[in-house]
Amino acid sequence: MNERADGARGASDGGAAGIVADWWGTSVSRIAPDVIELRGRPVQELIGRVGFADIVWLMLRGELPDERQAALLEAALVAGVDHGPHAPSIAVARMAITCGVGLNNAVATGVNLLGDVHGGAGEQCVELLQDILASGDAVATVARWRARDKYLPGFGHRFHTRDPRRDPLLALVDAAVAEGVVAGLHLRAARQVEELIAPVPMNIDGATAVIYAELGFPAPLARGLFVLSRSVGILAHAWEESGQGRRNKGPIPPSILPTDLRA
Amino acid sequence: MNERADGARGASDGGAAGIVADWWGTSVSRIAPDVIELRGRPVQELIGRVGFADIVWLMLRGELPDERQAALLEAALVAGVDHGPHAPSIAVARMAITCGVGLNNAVATGVNLLGDVHGGAGEQCVELLQDILASGDAVATVARWRARDKYLPGFGHRFHTRDPRRDPLLALVDAAVAEGVVAGLHLRAARQVEELIAPVPMNIDGATAVIYAELGFPAPLARGLFVLSRSVGILAHAWEESGQGRRNKGPIPPSILPTDLRA
Amino acid sequence: MNERADGARGASDGGAAGIVADWWGTSVSRIAPDVIELRGRPVQELIGRVGFADIVWLMLRGELPDERQAALLEAALVAGVDHGPHAPSIAVARMAITCGVGLNNAVATGVNLLGDVHGGAGEQCVELLQDILASGDAVATVARWRARDKYLPGFGHRFHTRDPRRDPLLALVDAAVAEGVVAGLHLRAARQVEELIAPVPMNIDGATAVIYAELGFPAPLARGLFVLSRSVGILAHAWEESGQGRRNKGPIPPSILPTDLRA
Amino acid sequence: MNERADGARGASDGGAAGIVADWWGTSVSRIAPDVIELRGRPVQELIGRVGFADIVWLMLRGELPDERQAALLEAALVAGVDHGPHAPSIAVARMAITCGVGLNNAVATGVNLLGDVHGGAGEQCVELLQDILASGDAVATVARWRARDKYLPGFGHRFHTRDPRRDPLLALVDAAVAEGVVAGLHLRAARQVEELIAPVPMNIDGATAVIYAELGFPAPLARGLFVLSRSVGILAHAWEESGQGRRNKGPIPPSILPTDLRA
Repeated sequence: MNERADGARGASDGGAAGIVADWWGTSVSRIAPDVIELRGRPVQELIGRVGFADIVWLMLRGELPDERQAALLEAALVAGVDHGPHAPSIAVARMAITCGVGLNNAVATGVNLLGDVHGGAGEQCVELLQDILASGDAVATVARWRARDKYLPGFGHRFHTRDPRRDPLLALVDAAVAEGVVAGLHLRAARQVEELIAPVPMNIDGATAVIYAELGFPAPLARGLFVLSRSVGILAHAWEESGQGRRNKGPIPPSILPTDLRA
Repeated sequence: MNERADGARGASDGGAAGIVADWWGTSVSRIAPDVIELRGRPVQELIGRVGFADIVWLMLRGELPDERQAALLEAALVAGVDHGPHAPSIAVARMAITCGVGLNNAVATGVNLLGDVHGGAGEQCVELLQDILASGDAVATVARWRARDKYLPGFGHRFHTRDPRRDPLLALVDAAVAEGVVAGLHLRAARQVEELIAPVPMNIDGATAVIYAELGFPAPLARGLFVLSRSVGILAHAWEESGQGRRNKGPIPPSILPTDLRA
Repeated sequence: MNERADGARGASDGGAAGIVADWWGTSVSRIAPDVIELRGRPVQELIGRVGFADIVWLMLRGELPDERQAALLEAALVAGVDHGPHAPSIAVARMAITCGVGLNNAVATGVNLLGDVHGGAGEQCVELLQDILASGDAVATVARWRARDKYLPGFGHRFHTRDPRRDPLLALVDAAVAEGVVAGLHLRAARQVEELIAPVPMNIDGATAVIYAELGFPAPLARGLFVLSRSVGILAHAWEESGQGRRNKGPIPPSILPTDLRA
Repeated sequence: MNERADGARGASDGGAAGIVADWWGTSVSRIAPDVIELRGRPVQELIGRVGFADIVWLMLRGELPDERQAALLEAALVAGVDHGPHAPSIAVARMAITCGVGLNNAVATGVNLLGDVHGGAGEQCVELLQDILASGDAVATVARWRARDKYLPGFGHRFHTRDPRRDPLLALVDAAVAEGVVAGLHLRAARQVEELIAPVPMNIDGATAVIYAELGFPAPLARGLFVLSRSVGILAHAWEESGQGRRNKGPIPPSILPTDLRA
């Protein structure tokens, strides 16, 4: 626990309502009787006019993207939805359903696992690319990162020799660069890394990191956006499991367990 | 705890791999070396070609929607993203950030609260509409539901006299009915309810329930889809809070607390 | 979502502080500068003088137990701490650690799974016993419950022919009855059930349900107390896993997966 | 996501059962038909014979404590159970209940918030004390820590001038040192810090950190043990809230909100 500091030392003037407005103030949304504004825009002007990628962008950044920016973001969101029932985030959501909790609790359980290791590679890859751009020296930067950890975030895959999501995502970035939608600096940095550690190719984390960074999202939002993306797969698997009637599904079928581990 | 039953009594033949395939089998996705299929479709054929609403639909239902179905789904997903920092789901995510957990943990905390009361009205409203359609008698059905609870799920709002999201959503459903995209039966049932309990109008839960039900989603997925939608707002608020440096933000500013509650 | 009702319609008089005191008022604890009272008792009078079972009892019920009540509660809390790494609650906590989240997040993930199926049997068993006592007819009550579900909560085990925790727990209840600590009515009802469905014996859920009910805890707290108990095992397993360096541990070792499920 | 590495590269020999035993192997517990062993001890030999603090110690460390070690641990577990409904961990659990999730989900929500800031000060304080002991120079160590952050973990309180839990806890440590139960080195280091930053006294995190460190628990378990302790208060508050019938309780009573924030 830490009851030491809470950042709200001095009372503001203006009475309780003023203090509360400050404490819970936000520039994300404004709610008043019969009024809902998202980033300053009345919700009724958004419904039916903007897509899901647009609203994600608006809520996180305060403005709407243009159509081509939104399309690039949407491609990245689509690409990461699922990697099968053995990804821990998916597995625990399925297990949660068999334990008798709600669909929302099952999705929350899966999302809770998208931590530094399971959900953080995209964020770390954005940092790597930014590091290369800041230093202007891919060789030295990669050497420095590999001295800490031989694996680079966003490159290589334990299962795929070439992640099938890499090529279509990078093709979209190439097209966006050609059209002037994005500048292409992070893409170039990522390709430099690929050359330096060949034949290990970029993976889904690397390819989406390139997109998020090119679109101007700060590194932590690479994880945040992956959370939104993977939630789709988590929900789909939880929903499928809910129709199968299993109870207390363990990680391993009881029948192949050695006696001492059966439970 | 319940260690009694787990639904995996008999071992199948075929050895460990066969048993495992059955235990973790799924029709949602197939992963093999260099292969990722979502509902039977190679992921590389989806990236850049389908939108977020399409992939949600595909993952939950096994097939792709047509363009107009996807647009209707997308409008509902956009409409529910946020209702301000005083919605419990949003508030706890902001509080979580100030307690020093990851962005994924903060989103999970918010989603975990979308239970029967906070996240279940859409699901319950779909059930109400299905009940009306099954019985063919809106008057009797509404009377039966109100005998249990004077509030009907999906109708009325504690804060808005008329939820600003209702009209634009229903206008889209009307258009979809006119174009033959959906049949309009659930819409009609919902309007019957509105007439019976006038002047209490449909709210966001009611309007999105109509959309989900018209599009053929089973009732529990009204909650599941709301989870995906509200996750956007939860993420946006958590992200905003993460830039503000507060520590252990309590529900109420300490300065207005009576002495005995300060903590 | 459900933004309809929040139970705080009328403002109280007395200004913001009065309203806040009401909204966040509690009889569990009182915090003022240099004062911490738990259920009316200064914390400094409790530290070093009461045990963990005492403080659990005090916090949930408002008064301290006598020594023999506390001992019986403590035995039940000790008995349920763990049932191996294949219990879903334990497994997901271990998986969470390998995904790079904090120890608190891992414990929360495990606790989140103690839902109606995985954590609810004790609660349901208390209801069954109360039902028998209310009706005075064990035969009819058991028949009624089995008509709904052939398995009775708290009886039988998928793995143990006789749960090794049953006998020592019931021996303690027998002793407590003999000493007049508890009345023994729920114990008798549970034994009636055992006779009716012989040779299926009581399991850990049944034996702890007897203890909690005999001690006067309402049924939902059978789940609540199990949460406290199982948290010990969840923490121990998460801690052990944190020392092993695995990353993204899936439910099944990749090496025995069929190709199509590897991930 | 990070699908790169999972730590299970090579298959072991011995067939599926051998692999599984390795993958889910543990020294915490052993489960076989009619056998439950916790750290090598049959559960039936523990029930009724050891207390809650004993089982916590056994599960985390593999052996049973002696009576005086257990008493010291128990005092620390008792001291941290609650700090009122405005601690974020308590508040979110109460809010969760009003959103319609289970008691286990509410406790999990609270525990999930015991992150680096809200639940990490004890762990950080153990590190500080170990740092002082390793360097043998309290003055330099404190200066180094304060250069990073003017607040030291475990010292000072935003609300109490003198945390009422400090004195009774330290009195117990003093007695344990006098009796030779613990060595007292961490206690001495903590008192050195107090003198260096006088008049800021140790708080609950500091006092429990001293106890956990004196008893030989590694730093991360200071957080783990706090999780077990605070879970009691979280459960008690969630249970109280569940009896009050509120729905979607926001962080602030609607009646004192400025219009624009009401929701």
